[in-house]
Amino acid sequence: MLMIPGPTPVPERVLLAMAKHTIGHRTADFSAIARDVTEGLQWLHQTQNDVLVVAASGTGAMEAGMINFLSGGDRILAGNNGKFGDRWVEMARAFGLEVEEVTAEWGKPLDPAEFKAKLDADPSIKAVIVTHSETSTGVTNDLETIAGYVKAHGALMIVDAVTSIGATNVPVDDWGLDVVASGSQKGYMMPPGLGFIAVSEKAWQAYDQATLPKFYFDLGVYRKNAKKDLTPFTPPVNLYFALQAALGMMRQEGLESIFARHLRLRNATRAAMVAIGLPLFAADEVASTAATAVLGTDSVDAAQVIKQCQSRFDMSLAGGQDHLKGKIFRMGHLGFMGDRDILTATAAIEAIARQLGQDFAPGAGVAAAAQILMG
Amino acid sequence: MLMIPGPTPVPERVLLAMAKHTIGHRTADFSAIARDVTEGLQWLHQTQNDVLVVAASGTGAMEAGMINFLSGGDRILAGNNGKFGDRWVEMARAFGLEVEEVTAEWGKPLDPAEFKAKLDADPSIKAVIVTHSETSTGVTNDLETIAGYVKAHGALMIVDAVTSIGATNVPVDDWGLDVVASGSQKGYMMPPGLGFIAVSEKAWQAYDQATLPKFYFDLGVYRKNAKKDLTPFTPPVNLYFALQAALGMMRQEGLESIFARHLRLRNATRAAMVAIGLPLFAADEVASTAATAVLGTDSVDAAQVIKQCQSRFDMSLAGGQDHLKGKIFRMGHLGFMGDRDILTATAAIEAIARQLGQDFAPGAGVAAAAQILMG
Repeated sequence: MLMIPGPTPVPERVLLAMAKHTIGHRTADFSAIARDVTEGLQWLHQTQNDVLVVAASGTGAMEAGMINFLSGGDRILAGNNGKFGDRWVEMARAFGLEVEEVTAEWGKPLDPAEFKAKLDADPSIKAVIVTHSETSTGVTNDLETIAGYVKAHGALMIVDAVTSIGATNVPVDDWGLDVVASGSQKGYMMPPGLGFIAVSEKAWQAYDQATLPKFYFDLGVYRKNAKKDLTPFTPPVNLYFALQAALGMMRQEGLESIFARHLRLRNATRAAMVAIGLPLFAADEVASTAATAVLGTDSVDAAQVIKQCQSRFDMSLAGGQDHLKGKIFRMGHLGFMGDRDILTATAAIEAIARQLGQDFAPGAGVAAAAQILMG
Repeated sequence: MLMIPGPTPVPERVLLAMAKHTIGHRTADFSAIARDVTEGLQWLHQTQNDVLVVAASGTGAMEAGMINFLSGGDRILAGNNGKFGDRWVEMARAFGLEVEEVTAEWGKPLDPAEFKAKLDADPSIKAVIVTHSETSTGVTNDLETIAGYVKAHGALMIVDAVTSIGATNVPVDDWGLDVVASGSQKGYMMPPGLGFIAVSEKAWQAYDQATLPKFYFDLGVYRKNAKKDLTPFTPPVNLYFALQAALGMMRQEGLESIFARHLRLRNATRAAMVAIGLPLFAADEVASTAATAVLGTDSVDAAQVIKQCQSRFDMSLAGGQDHLKGKIFRMGHLGFMGDRDILTATAAIEAIARQLGQDFAPGAGVAAAAQILMG
């Protein structure tokens, strides 16, 4: 039982779609699928922009989202309040970009006012990079406000939406997000292997000036092919089958229901942890709908919770990364997850916490979750 | 029925392995799979070198194979006698490499003596790039001889083995191949989505000096993770399931049998085309074991063969690329292909050629194929 923030559980319908016989990628049949998933992706991103598909992980999608629109030496502003924010800073520097950071302690959100101040001070900033949902800490950054400042400034807004697309509202056109990268193993309810990049008209204008070298990730070539329902290189055909099936299920559920479900699962998870007496790492106002990070206590060692969940209940939780290793456990609640999964997971964590000596009324965790789930 | 040079047919066993529930990639279960496929890949490549796996197409694997070992302005020598040779020249130039070409007409092999002459004339050449099996024309280049000259010179031998690994003998260590790139949807009998790169110790020394920017494709990071049976970014877990199943089937068959089977299928296909009176595009001595390219005649239009194979027999053949469009059709015979597939495909092509007015003894094509298949 996968309760980590990715890969997330995959519905049978999607797994079985993926197991169909591979077809040629230069056929009318494949082009019909490519057309259908493009429409689905635009619906999911709430955008009229191109949404392109690459064979890569979410990190590959972010790289494509960076190198296509920038040139060596360009000044960028990058938000950094967790493992992924850190990764994009490292990536940008690897490509010779001049990175100015807006930081916050892990577990705290980025302050939009700091973005505004740094943007006001430097008209030469070409792009701003923000991780919308910082999976390493369970914190959501205030993308809407930051994007407003970026739009006023004129820089490109580049977003890591890997664990927010499909888990919370990301209205790409309304918020004016220029480049939005995500990966298939999160809200998409499918296995890893596909990356997605939504690209605005303003970003395409930047593309024409950008000089960072690229070939496999040259999105202009993907765009040209996408207009003909083709891909420049052999696409992971079976993952397209899975994507088509998953997008079909998402459209059936509807965006509002998907977002409401994720909110409910998050709230139930958090209420359960509070009832058990396990401290939440992120504050309520900024808590991610993708994953909840939970601190250990004097009696409950976070690493023990992960270990025993696996050994006693065959359930995967994630640990902390870097300096949070051993200090927190993370429970994913995004993608193909329902109320029953939260009851199961909180019951398991409650049982372990009790055995480890945590003091709380037996059943309190599950009862707190149930109260929220039952509305 | 897929008779194209990739994606190739996938056995049920591999499809069903892929349809298993996704597991976390930071688990002992996944690491056991990673370890097993690494051993299988080394066996398939006949090498002790690292063989790394990236989430990408074969083109992505080639890009990784190029940018990790070279720096902007480096002089390289690239063989170019088809669509893929052309692509690598274009890719190398996109990354600012100085490319000298060894060319041959499409349908003819590269001349190893030309490589020798150009290498002798220029000690500064850092790497030589050769497409082993040029899928666009069905021609195999004499990699062994070229690699010998490259080794003597001291440059890196970088190989596109996308349609040769698993279809013909590519003894990486014996031939001293430094970088060998391939993709999953060819000889591997699995769907597209994984790229493979074998890297020699000499190439790792070059890696330490190479300055082309990289992040997603930074193979040094993959190597460090692979030593711990991990991947740096979320791997396409379900494609690993498929890879493990496919490598298991390949080990069961054995390398010698796999190579002999591909040779037999190639020879039977070619004999059938000759018997039908359709001219072969590549000469016998250099004919690829992955795909056979066939020219049209006055009565048989190549495009018609492809069209009718699809509409009458639900069988996919490939067309010519670039200036060969409409002039040839290509039949793939690599991966999960057996004698029955060749009988089926040649019977279909024979029926179509006959109806289009080609003059030959009815049944001659299938009879010629059968004679070779029956030994």
